Amino acid sequence: MTSNRFSFSVLLPTSLSIDAPNLKQKTVKIGSIGRGLAIFRVKEVCIYNDDDPHVKNQAAEAKLTSMLLRYMETPQYLRKLLFKRMPELLYAGLLPPLRTPHHPLEDEKNRPGDYREGVVVEANENQSLIEIGLPEKATVGRRLRVGQRLTVRLGKRLGGGRIAVTQVTRDEIDEYWGYEVTLAPSIAAALNRLRADYVIGTSRRGKNLYEAVQAIKDNSPARVAVAFGGPYQGLFEICGRQGVDAGKLFDAMINTIPSQGAATVRTEEALVATLALLNALVEG
Amino acid sequence: MTSNRFSFSVLLPTSLSIDAPNLKQKTVKIGSIGRGLAIFRVKEVCIYNDDDPHVKNQAAEAKLTSMLLRYMETPQYLRKLLFKRMPELLYAGLLPPLRTPHHPLEDEKNRPGDYREGVVVEANENQSLIEIGLPEKATVGRRLRVGQRLTVRLGKRLGGGRIAVTQVTRDEIDEYWGYEVTLAPSIAAALNRLRADYVIGTSRRGKNLYEAVQAIKDNSPARVAVAFGGPYQGLFEICGRQGVDAGKLFDAMINTIPSQGAATVRTEEALVATLALLNALVEG
Repeated sequence: MTSNRFSFSVLLPTSLSIDAPNLKQKTVKIGSIGRGLAIFRVKEVCIYNDDDPHVKNQAAEAKLTSMLLRYMETPQYLRKLLFKRMPELLYAGLLPPLRTPHHPLEDEKNRPGDYREGVVVEANENQSLIEIGLPEKATVGRRLRVGQRLTVRLGKRLGGGRIAVTQVTRDEIDEYWGYEVTLAPSIAAALNRLRADYVIGTSRRGKNLYEAVQAIKDNSPARVAVAFGGPYQGLFEICGRQGVDAGKLFDAMINTIPSQGAATVRTEEALVATLALLNALVEG
Repeated sequence: MTSNRFSFSVLLPTSLSIDAPNLKQKTVKIGSIGRGLAIFRVKEVCIYNDDDPHVKNQAAEAKLTSMLLRYMETPQYLRKLLFKRMPELLYAGLLPPLRTPHHPLEDEKNRPGDYREGVVVEANENQSLIEIGLPEKATVGRRLRVGQRLTVRLGKRLGGGRIAVTQVTRDEIDEYWGYEVTLAPSIAAALNRLRADYVIGTSRRGKNLYEAVQAIKDNSPARVAVAFGGPYQGLFEICGRQGVDAGKLFDAMINTIPSQGAATVRTEEALVATLALLNALVEG
């Protein structure tokens, strides 16, 4: 499960779930999206405002999607610490587990050298205590912000229910360690923010899948961004509405489901189909 | 949306949805499967008994999966005629629409030469009346079995709320016209029944995706079968339990999600990933 190759960033529109009739079905839909992100080791997902006229409240839609995706990405033992009871989370029980390495089962990731996600629960001048989902609390010898989420590497057990840990960045971990969720006010702003080396748009009117695959193989980009349109309007329409040229914004515009049997393909379906193709072809 | 190339058959185990905790979530899961089948124009799906020891009642599981998939595949205007109120259909409202050509919207497929699915509602020696989801009933000049589902080509409007039609086979229709659902007592029996020209198994331990793609390109098979294992046990385990040699049963055993970021991939996810790869690569 190591990855010394490129990482995926994904762009999703704020209108992502407006084809779902209620919060329960929106939750199920966003749950499928979160699974797709984890299966293909996506590092960052950016929810961009697509100004879809069907969306009454862009901010509320963006908040719902980003909150549910963040909730899914948070290890279960940290969820109560990081998320209050919110109306958006009413059906969070329907979100499927990610089963990623940073969501360890009870007997996993509890030895020196293992990594864990944690949240700071107490802090003074000399030390901070961190909840890491083990019977013991983790401790570091300096003040951290209470409520902060961080990644730690386990050290020695100190006795008294304490484990010494070191704070680390995700980059030093070889395994897939979850995705970050960000927001952007437009598709162009999202791409600007992600700083990807190769940018792929997906569209039923797209074509050059092999060109995109070859370009990735030839240029070994560190970050590949893959953008999806909305349930009612595709990337070309969104770019048109926001006054940007899709031909300039994207290095390739691909269609990953030629000869589709259904009139429409849902974003959660297109996400898995597209990332499956790019993931397998670039390895091959 | 025409397809003058091979068609997919898919094999799914009876244990398909045992990882879902209740009927509602089973329905959602099977709904995702049905969507995957339609998007990739699958012609036949066979639910094979995989003897998974976690399944208490193989027959009941097979019935639930096949009934929900059949219900989804049936045009909405025929569902009440073909399905009684059954406990398995309690959450059928959660099944997403297929949006296939044989599920026309209100103003589609209503002209001479168009095809429609129908169910015989009345019949005597000289003629039968067929419900085809239009304001008029269809009529043919011979006795058919009341309750039978069939495909018709529309002819002239006869007045008196009648349209002359001709019964046809699906093979004469160029568009994707839905999938058939069948049952089999074992994986070997299912493959025997499907008579595919090329048989692909999917497994995390599989490898030769390109070999499979090349074989399909070289041999132009008419039918390609793709088999999936269960939520708890893969195809190798199922073959072992049923005393058949996976190496002989399958022409290729492929892994379509190399370096997966999640410990497990659900069947509905693997289905979309696998069919997306085969669909796009064989065209390319």
